[in-house]
Amino acid sequence: MTDEQWMQQALQLAKQAAAEGEVPVGAVVTLGDEIVGQGRNRREMGKNALYHAELEAIDQACTRLGGWRLWQCSIYVTLEPCPMCAGAILNARIPRVVYGAPDDKNGAAGSVINILSMPFQFRPQLVSGVLEAPCRQLLQEFFQQLREKRSTEEPRWKK
Amino acid sequence: MTDEQWMQQALQLAKQAAAEGEVPVGAVVTLGDEIVGQGRNRREMGKNALYHAELEAIDQACTRLGGWRLWQCSIYVTLEPCPMCAGAILNARIPRVVYGAPDDKNGAAGSVINILSMPFQFRPQLVSGVLEAPCRQLLQEFFQQLREKRSTEEPRWKK
Repeated sequence: MTDEQWMQQALQLAKQAAAEGEVPVGAVVTLGDEIVGQGRNRREMGKNALYHAELEAIDQACTRLGGWRLWQCSIYVTLEPCPMCAGAILNARIPRVVYGAPDDKNGAAGSVINILSMPFQFRPQLVSGVLEAPCRQLLQEFFQQLREKRSTEEPRWKK
Repeated sequence: MTDEQWMQQALQLAKQAAAEGEVPVGAVVTLGDEIVGQGRNRREMGKNALYHAELEAIDQACTRLGGWRLWQCSIYVTLEPCPMCAGAILNARIPRVVYGAPDDKNGAAGSVINILSMPFQFRPQLVSGVLEAPCRQLLQEFFQQLREKRSTEEPRWKK
């Protein structure tokens, strides 16, 4: 499987998140030719600050593989990880991180800071920009629709 | 309740972790005079990279309060948060962070980096060094006992 093929799997999960009204981000953790963990952003419906795609995927992978060190795995995520998720990748010792679109506001793998290259105990390999265009487009369409929906609603002061 | 009193609660959870053979770290999330989330490090027994004290406490607090924004809460943790946990504090919008002992190797609230003061969307107030001595001592004793236990075991090459 190529990086693009794995990212397609993550993109499917992101689309599922969008259909549920969540900011569309998806992630898969792979081991060899297999997906051992998958996740999508579920923060709003789940009412939980921890329900990011990467954390759900890492949680599943630890359970599936029976240990906290995912040292033979890779993680694919449609959006650059936030500080929490970049930190979780370090904690899980995932040696290869592949992401799609950068996140100028909250990206912790190069955009705002790069936690993955700092002097912590572990430094994974980082690949960015895989299927960047469709990953970014999905996010842009989601926020565009959100703005349109809000602008057609009655202003709150009229209610 | 004072910061020291809340930190005592976190310290009790850290002691529980030590008794379970885990690196002793404990955390509580408070709202007014109440603990709304508590956690201890359970990484080894739980076989999961995400099972840090802060994440467990934040998860409980989100469930308890029914939302992902813990904007009226404080978090008390015996050891300086790692990048994952500092990021989770930002994601949960916890406005006040109090920790006990610094972590020179993995601390992301001042020691290695300070994620809580970076140009992300949110910057909590940070208080460090509350009950630092007992928080540090608990960790030092744990690692001392671990070293002693290892040194009395048969060397692996003899087996």
